[in-house]
Amino acid sequence: MSVPTLFDISLDRHGESPLYQQIKRHIITLIEDGALPPLTRLPATRQLARHLGVNRITVVTAYAELNAEDYISSQVGRGSFVLDRAAQRSAQSPPPPSLRDPADWSAHQFNREMMRLARRADILSFAPGMPATDLLPVEAYRRALNQVLRAAGSQVLQYGPVEGDPALLQAITAELRRFEIQARPQRLLVTSGAEQALALVLRTILRRGDHVLLENPTYLHVIDLLASSGIVVHLVRSDAGGICLDHVARLIQMHRPRLLYLTPTFQNPTGVCMPLARRQQLVELAARHNLLILEDDVYRHLWLGTPPPPPLRALSPADNVIYVNGYSKCLLPGARIGYLLAPTALYANLSAAHQTLDIAAGELQQRALATYLHEGQFARHLQHVRAAHRQRLQAMNEALLAHMPADTKWSLPTGGVFTWVQLPSTGPSATTVYVHALELGVTFAPGHLFYAAGSSDSHHLRLNFALHPPAAIHDGIRRLARAWANARG
Amino acid sequence: MSVPTLFDISLDRHGESPLYQQIKRHIITLIEDGALPPLTRLPATRQLARHLGVNRITVVTAYAELNAEDYISSQVGRGSFVLDRAAQRSAQSPPPPSLRDPADWSAHQFNREMMRLARRADILSFAPGMPATDLLPVEAYRRALNQVLRAAGSQVLQYGPVEGDPALLQAITAELRRFEIQARPQRLLVTSGAEQALALVLRTILRRGDHVLLENPTYLHVIDLLASSGIVVHLVRSDAGGICLDHVARLIQMHRPRLLYLTPTFQNPTGVCMPLARRQQLVELAARHNLLILEDDVYRHLWLGTPPPPPLRALSPADNVIYVNGYSKCLLPGARIGYLLAPTALYANLSAAHQTLDIAAGELQQRALATYLHEGQFARHLQHVRAAHRQRLQAMNEALLAHMPADTKWSLPTGGVFTWVQLPSTGPSATTVYVHALELGVTFAPGHLFYAAGSSDSHHLRLNFALHPPAAIHDGIRRLARAWANARG
Repeated sequence: MSVPTLFDISLDRHGESPLYQQIKRHIITLIEDGALPPLTRLPATRQLARHLGVNRITVVTAYAELNAEDYISSQVGRGSFVLDRAAQRSAQSPPPPSLRDPADWSAHQFNREMMRLARRADILSFAPGMPATDLLPVEAYRRALNQVLRAAGSQVLQYGPVEGDPALLQAITAELRRFEIQARPQRLLVTSGAEQALALVLRTILRRGDHVLLENPTYLHVIDLLASSGIVVHLVRSDAGGICLDHVARLIQMHRPRLLYLTPTFQNPTGVCMPLARRQQLVELAARHNLLILEDDVYRHLWLGTPPPPPLRALSPADNVIYVNGYSKCLLPGARIGYLLAPTALYANLSAAHQTLDIAAGELQQRALATYLHEGQFARHLQHVRAAHRQRLQAMNEALLAHMPADTKWSLPTGGVFTWVQLPSTGPSATTVYVHALELGVTFAPGHLFYAAGSSDSHHLRLNFALHPPAAIHDGIRRLARAWANARG
Repeated sequence: MSVPTLFDISLDRHGESPLYQQIKRHIITLIEDGALPPLTRLPATRQLARHLGVNRITVVTAYAELNAEDYISSQVGRGSFVLDRAAQRSAQSPPPPSLRDPADWSAHQFNREMMRLARRADILSFAPGMPATDLLPVEAYRRALNQVLRAAGSQVLQYGPVEGDPALLQAITAELRRFEIQARPQRLLVTSGAEQALALVLRTILRRGDHVLLENPTYLHVIDLLASSGIVVHLVRSDAGGICLDHVARLIQMHRPRLLYLTPTFQNPTGVCMPLARRQQLVELAARHNLLILEDDVYRHLWLGTPPPPPLRALSPADNVIYVNGYSKCLLPGARIGYLLAPTALYANLSAAHQTLDIAAGELQQRALATYLHEGQFARHLQHVRAAHRQRLQAMNEALLAHMPADTKWSLPTGGVFTWVQLPSTGPSATTVYVHALELGVTFAPGHLFYAAGSSDSHHLRLNFALHPPAAIHDGIRRLARAWANARG
């Protein structure tokens, strides 16, 4: 591996400052400018020394000081990784007030890395928000694909209707009725996953200078979508029942925001499900102040005990809720099928933008999904998934109890796929543990990634409890606990 | 059908101006403001009269005057349609200089309408740019899907790698080598159709105020993508060998454009294929002036006699060509699989934007396509398609000769799917013929849609010669000729 050009450090070999100091200062600048995001691996000392034409001890000294000052985590035989300074500093100073720097792709890069690691056989990953691969209904879907191709033949391999396949629109409408939402197919748009629906809404409805409210922490893709958009983001406090309405009301008074994005049901990353009473108060507040709600409901199907309260869209007295859902979390991520239900006043705009961007899944997969949904297989699949999820959450709870240090806290969600874990505040941060965990072949999502602004939260981590069977969960959490102990040193 | 609110005309019943005049003036305003785009159907006279509470003869008179003044085409029993005034006026006045009004969704709406009509069994459509449904390799693709699902199982229904399935990236790299393009898979991005690749490039690389060169006429989706973008568009003259290089050179001197978009091989809508010598001159000119080229090569596979010259990307001395291709025109529109090959300097930007927008086909279809391509079926499919296309182009030529008026001219392309037809300039315009043709159950794409600025070209139309078997082509062109005669009256 060659040394990246970032490390082409021009050294003043006859100056007053020692060479190791010059190297150290250069690397601190790279870290503070975001050019080296958290968890980046630095070049090996031997490599960098050769690259710069200096003695290896010079680089070792620079790294040792960076390690001592908590810029990097550096251990012989393991390599050196950039630490999350925001998380490290948080104990002393309040979080910076601004939205995450648009130029900072660290969450983005991390997400990519997370997905890559999740596909490696030698790593047990609790990190990504995807459903368990072993629970996907492959055979049933294969039959549906064959049925559609045999019946409709080449028609479904032609360009399809941009608003979505009529059979799928009907199936979605029927499903929405079960959520107590009365929707006309003419207000629906089929998108390439729910993610695309969110991108479509945020980029079509909002203008530069608009104010938007977000839960904090929240879904990190939305943070990315709003970066560099010129949109002013305000972060809403949350508690065990979801976002705090008094805070929403105060932000409405102060900023007249145009839109609130939230996941009221089994939130990502906290797993919280907002109770009915608060939902009702929220939709009334929003209707009164003409606040659009963008409701992300992709975890709804994944309840464990009893179904969650109806969506905000079903409860709202006004036509001001944009409802987004899809089939990636509860059924088939790879089919890339999501949808949005638009308020009447916004439909024409969203539909036109949707057409220009051609954001739609192919008709074959839409029709196959419609066939699958039509045959009542979905309800049986969900029963099967829920039973497995209950087992897996129980295994996660037992494993955390058995292996993690005594002061660790975690949520026991009533649905979704996430456990939100808080490490002991006196011990190592989540990003420090991350580096050690990776070495032991286990990964998770550090909590600070889900905060839109620099986070004061350095000790949370998100675990997907649904991804693996119970035995693997026990094994993984045992390794995680060992990583925590190693990180504490 | 109820009368749209556009026609809620507030009439001054005691004023000096007669009611029919007030109605007529209101409708002219709607037409000139673009609220009633060309080919919109007006309400029936009986309906509008009832809606406005006026005598039916009042509306009939208004429509008769609009008809006489070429605002609408109105005939008893057939309804009244808005005509394209720009096309009508062109004989007298030069075309307006500005890019098509961003607020004018008429091309957009027309495209949607075109696709809708193409799916109707009672209409024979030569309009859309899609491949022939009867030539799609449904069975082979079904087998490939089954093979992938049986071998890779649930993995391919999980979230896939955002940069594209590795097997497909390999297959594309191999195909590019056959086009004389040496590409590394690390410079490729798989997109949801070539359309998405174009959107990704235009929206990521260009900034407000950038200057861009377009062929004129060109692919109408690109005109839509550039609308409301704040990008300054300059139109390049073309001849039988593609864009005129002296005009490109002059526009470079005057405006220092950042990017040139073109389809050098079997252009849409004209079918022109740029000869090798001009390609070489163009890439040298662009390299000298640091002009990015966005090369749309989606028709390359569809040559009829001998393969076209290599792509600009293969000929360019500089790394300044963004190459876009896909499998919608030559294989499977419904799989929604396209790709782009980026210059090294642009890859990181495009890749980051690609990831934020999640513009990718699902892995299942990517892997199935890779399987299909790997097994040498593609080459056999293309032989089959080319043989059919040769037959169909011959049938189109014979039918146009046999049925259309003597002064009609048309191109005989050496590949692609389009014949570019010029009606006699002394006869009715293409949009006028369109309305009559629809009545006879046949449609085409009026030529003015493909011009970025108001067009001086009212007598061209685009026919997809590949869509139907020879007998249907003869039948359709016979009806088209009858529509022309009806339009002449």
